[in-house]
Amino acid sequence: MSLLIRKLDSTQDGFRQKLDALLAFEASTDDAIEAAVTTILHDVKQRGDAAVLEYTNKFDRIPGGGAAGMAQFDIGQAELDAALAGLPEAQRAALQTAAERIRVFHERQKQELQGFSYTEPDGTVLGQRITPLDRVGIYVPGGKAAYPSSVLMNAIPAKVAGVAEIIMVVPTPDGVKNQMVLAAAAIAGVTRVITIGGAQAVGALAYGTATIGAVDKIVGPGNAYVAAAKRRVFGTVGIDMIAGPSEILVLCDGTTDPDWVAMDLFSQAEHDELAQAIMLCPDADYIAQVEASIDKLLPTMPRQSVIRTSLLERGALIKVRDMMEACEIANAIAAEHLEISAENPQQWADLIRHAGAMFLGRFSSESLGDYCCGPNHVLPTSRTARFSSPLGVYDFQKRSSILYVSEAGAQTLGLIAAELAYGEGLQAHARSAELRLQPVRFKQPS
Amino acid sequence: MSLLIRKLDSTQDGFRQKLDALLAFEASTDDAIEAAVTTILHDVKQRGDAAVLEYTNKFDRIPGGGAAGMAQFDIGQAELDAALAGLPEAQRAALQTAAERIRVFHERQKQELQGFSYTEPDGTVLGQRITPLDRVGIYVPGGKAAYPSSVLMNAIPAKVAGVAEIIMVVPTPDGVKNQMVLAAAAIAGVTRVITIGGAQAVGALAYGTATIGAVDKIVGPGNAYVAAAKRRVFGTVGIDMIAGPSEILVLCDGTTDPDWVAMDLFSQAEHDELAQAIMLCPDADYIAQVEASIDKLLPTMPRQSVIRTSLLERGALIKVRDMMEACEIANAIAAEHLEISAENPQQWADLIRHAGAMFLGRFSSESLGDYCCGPNHVLPTSRTARFSSPLGVYDFQKRSSILYVSEAGAQTLGLIAAELAYGEGLQAHARSAELRLQPVRFKQPS
Repeated sequence: MSLLIRKLDSTQDGFRQKLDALLAFEASTDDAIEAAVTTILHDVKQRGDAAVLEYTNKFDRIPGGGAAGMAQFDIGQAELDAALAGLPEAQRAALQTAAERIRVFHERQKQELQGFSYTEPDGTVLGQRITPLDRVGIYVPGGKAAYPSSVLMNAIPAKVAGVAEIIMVVPTPDGVKNQMVLAAAAIAGVTRVITIGGAQAVGALAYGTATIGAVDKIVGPGNAYVAAAKRRVFGTVGIDMIAGPSEILVLCDGTTDPDWVAMDLFSQAEHDELAQAIMLCPDADYIAQVEASIDKLLPTMPRQSVIRTSLLERGALIKVRDMMEACEIANAIAAEHLEISAENPQQWADLIRHAGAMFLGRFSSESLGDYCCGPNHVLPTSRTARFSSPLGVYDFQKRSSILYVSEAGAQTLGLIAAELAYGEGLQAHARSAELRLQPVRFKQPS
Repeated sequence: MSLLIRKLDSTQDGFRQKLDALLAFEASTDDAIEAAVTTILHDVKQRGDAAVLEYTNKFDRIPGGGAAGMAQFDIGQAELDAALAGLPEAQRAALQTAAERIRVFHERQKQELQGFSYTEPDGTVLGQRITPLDRVGIYVPGGKAAYPSSVLMNAIPAKVAGVAEIIMVVPTPDGVKNQMVLAAAAIAGVTRVITIGGAQAVGALAYGTATIGAVDKIVGPGNAYVAAAKRRVFGTVGIDMIAGPSEILVLCDGTTDPDWVAMDLFSQAEHDELAQAIMLCPDADYIAQVEASIDKLLPTMPRQSVIRTSLLERGALIKVRDMMEACEIANAIAAEHLEISAENPQQWADLIRHAGAMFLGRFSSESLGDYCCGPNHVLPTSRTARFSSPLGVYDFQKRSSILYVSEAGAQTLGLIAAELAYGEGLQAHARSAELRLQPVRFKQPS
């Protein structure tokens, strides 16, 4: 028996408690981080570029940075284009194809949301208008977790939405730039790239400085400092969700090559020791096969130590009564990524109420979705798929209600509004409606 | 000259700074409130109903409440129906008509968002599914700010979205129930009404207790304790925006009866001393007329002291160069409510990029929209209309991505995904894609 991953059985006593304990994840708040972020944000708000420059030279150790001013942090279009041109052919083609597929999917989201208006018999017009945000900031982590795919997934929906200015910030510790990230920015149509990061970059985007205009929303992943800074500037600007550790839940009927499922679990586990990989299956023999595949394949993985910790601490292979029960448990888990690796997967998908993204059928590995299928890979984690959605074009648009009340409409609506306003004790509301009545008539409040 | 409201001129030196100062509003966080809320939430999470019962009896002084247990807080359907039946006929009819109009508008929002799917030539299917949230909590303030219109505006979009359980909490200090609020709950189709409030109600909804199932999202306005509690449970459940003070911005070309505009400004100002009412107009004579109307009408208003403070502290009549400049300033203000009280208002509406709701033409007073036009009256405040939207059906739905990759699709997508995954150093991602290639072939990472 493998000692790499826990095994649970839904018929055991205390199964639900064990499952709840396994799923429990509370993002800890670190007082030292909170305090540091508060100071940095305050400083950037007060001193602008001077503060950004100091923090960047301090934290990212930019060689000879002190004298060169903020201009040194701008990467021009020529450098982005050169990064793209300099990629190996296969990599460039893969990035371009992925970008094009992501664009096509997100264009569908845009088509779906066109706004509407309707005219009532008395000439009153009501509607909803959809407009893009003006300016968006995209945070891209630097260093080892620099992911060009994240650049595409965050920037392309903004571009499709029609956002005029997309400002990407990416720290370059010790001045080291990731060429694939710059190439992705070129492909995605980012309008400005600035090599700053951390809470100072979030502050610059939220409050604006002399050289960086304030944005309306900040999206993209980051470390604990970035997450804390985003939480703090929320309200001044919009933010995306603060993501928890990544999760995969595989529902398997026992008909998929067990090596495939094992590798799918690895592909989540390799992200992070806190990542969570769980399989639900009604077939005990098959579970044993997946376990054997895990044992066999783990030593072949370059990131095996991360995978091992993740599987040991947060993974599970769970024997369920049947696929119906698997779907029920999946709804309780509300996973970020849900693979239904089964014959006729649609029958089970129809029973799923909560999941960030559903991968149907055994050829639909999560990794295909992570890079190039088209749907977004920024997805709700930590059970938030119960109430939130993948990142999309809609995150870079907002709605405004439109109300044009005709003179005739004001006669009927005015009486209703006045009645309710008096009922709520808001007499100016009532009078404002009644002044539009012809002849003007004020109800005596009861 | 009136001393009730400040007057500004866009041609004056320092106008933008004065405007910025006028608009500046920072929600202060009160450490005592934060600490109290933290304790209450922790207590409700640990002790459930017992804590809710204790806090409710303590804060709301429920007569003889201690012994009766949680059941005493449930208001049954019969009592809701009786409240509706007991309203004066005009009030009941107004509430029902308003509800029906709100329903019609929100049905349009639902129609707009149907999800989509498309099939690629190789059989791969990609799409987006829209589903309602399972359970929603609606917070309704008790006491003097008990607004039946808010019940309709929060509950009807949830109902239209298809939310199965809509649980309304409304505190009843000293046991006093607002019949119009209960009637609104009956009309809106709220599934359960519980007479609890404050941070303890937010905690009960977010974490669940033995008698109250945990919800997926909490919406609705509340006092500083409720706002702080909602912020804290965000992540465990979804929340709507934390609203700032209400705002109206009137763009007027000088052709509307000045009494109407004055009363529209009052209708915002009467909400709250912190509410903000501003008019932009290119016509100095007309501004003087509005000022005279303010002087004349204010003494007639029952809530004149609130209005007076709001106008004095946060209101303004601003002379602009022309209506074009008015629109430009309106975009900087990004008001919650924007009235364009002008001839041919659409020409100016076309220049507006940011507003929660736009009221076009002189008959479209904000108060009509507050109660019964149909669009929602829960709108983004404090310049957040730059990036957020009115409350709507979409706030009670979430999207899931659907990815079904065909065997043929896995061949082309697998090569792209593997290329990018190796580029990001995520080998298990690459292998997971490559295992689906036929024949299986692993690229040697470069």
